[in-house]
Amino acid sequence: MFISFEGTEGVGKSTLIQGVAAHLDTLKIEYILTREPGGTPLAEQIRGLLLTPDGEKIAPACELLLLFAARAQHISQVIEPALAAGKWVLCDRFVDASFAYQCGGRALPTAQVQVLVDQFVSVLPNKTFWLDAPVEIGMARASKRGALDRFEQERLEFFERVRVVYTERAVAESNRIIRVDATLAASDVLKAVLNHL
Amino acid sequence: MFISFEGTEGVGKSTLIQGVAAHLDTLKIEYILTREPGGTPLAEQIRGLLLTPDGEKIAPACELLLLFAARAQHISQVIEPALAAGKWVLCDRFVDASFAYQCGGRALPTAQVQVLVDQFVSVLPNKTFWLDAPVEIGMARASKRGALDRFEQERLEFFERVRVVYTERAVAESNRIIRVDATLAASDVLKAVLNHL
Repeated sequence: MFISFEGTEGVGKSTLIQGVAAHLDTLKIEYILTREPGGTPLAEQIRGLLLTPDGEKIAPACELLLLFAARAQHISQVIEPALAAGKWVLCDRFVDASFAYQCGGRALPTAQVQVLVDQFVSVLPNKTFWLDAPVEIGMARASKRGALDRFEQERLEFFERVRVVYTERAVAESNRIIRVDATLAASDVLKAVLNHL
Repeated sequence: MFISFEGTEGVGKSTLIQGVAAHLDTLKIEYILTREPGGTPLAEQIRGLLLTPDGEKIAPACELLLLFAARAQHISQVIEPALAAGKWVLCDRFVDASFAYQCGGRALPTAQVQVLVDQFVSVLPNKTFWLDAPVEIGMARASKRGALDRFEQERLEFFERVRVVYTERAVAESNRIIRVDATLAASDVLKAVLNHL
């Protein structure tokens, strides 16, 4: 099983993923925890280029291609080997984030992301849990965590556009993408996700 | 005018480009000198990830996407502004290198490179000078320059495949791509190129 977790900043993805992992431990199911952008040393270096707020302005197309470069490395070095070994993969963000952030947030054409998925993404999640909450709630939580990265520094309207695309994708791919109400208590969010699994 | 210079290692691109630049100086034509991968601070950081021989093995798809990420940044931050300002752009390698190295050398499908060109490359060179020489000659010259980067460490067969794709592209796009015999003396190579311009 390949499971991805999606959502804007501060919606509780990390807590949920730890909860799911603890549950798999009790079931003696082997799994790996990983994240995007990142998941390999090279992909984490690419993440560093993407998130460092100083330096030159990154063109939206460059940002998108860096994300897919990191993803190609992550798929070939981590995700495919883990799935081939019969392990579950729990991944913090995957392709839906690219549609939401780059098409929604950055207003890039959907076709640009779709061709990258078609040409370079050989494996899609079996299930995707989208933690949804009003943008203000997540941003308030994220800002409490300390220094904000380049994405977290975006404005409210950016994340509203991101949320719109997540909503559209959850409707269009309702078999795969499960919306979870992230305003619930963390224990109730976990319970809802485990019910689906 | 946007002019790119192509060819495998050690064929004399740098010398030729300096010669063309000196000629533009005498004509009082404004130009910029740039290169791929690279050309902006971020794109040069991406170049660093691509050329560093140590560290994990880079998946061919990741390599390709990193090259196009650097290119997207280079086009938007350097090439398009220079052309808009009426300057000539002399660029050491451009899209033809991706077809030659990634499709030829790495055996990636041509379609993967073509969709990236179609979606992310908004400007193509007016003229491309391909410096062609038997692979052994270029490699012997490149190895004299000192430590080899990750591409220069490839074997002879790799560069033979690269050369085959350059040959095919020069035939298919004979209006744009000019083959120059790089076994000639540097002064004759320059003369041939200036004749075309």
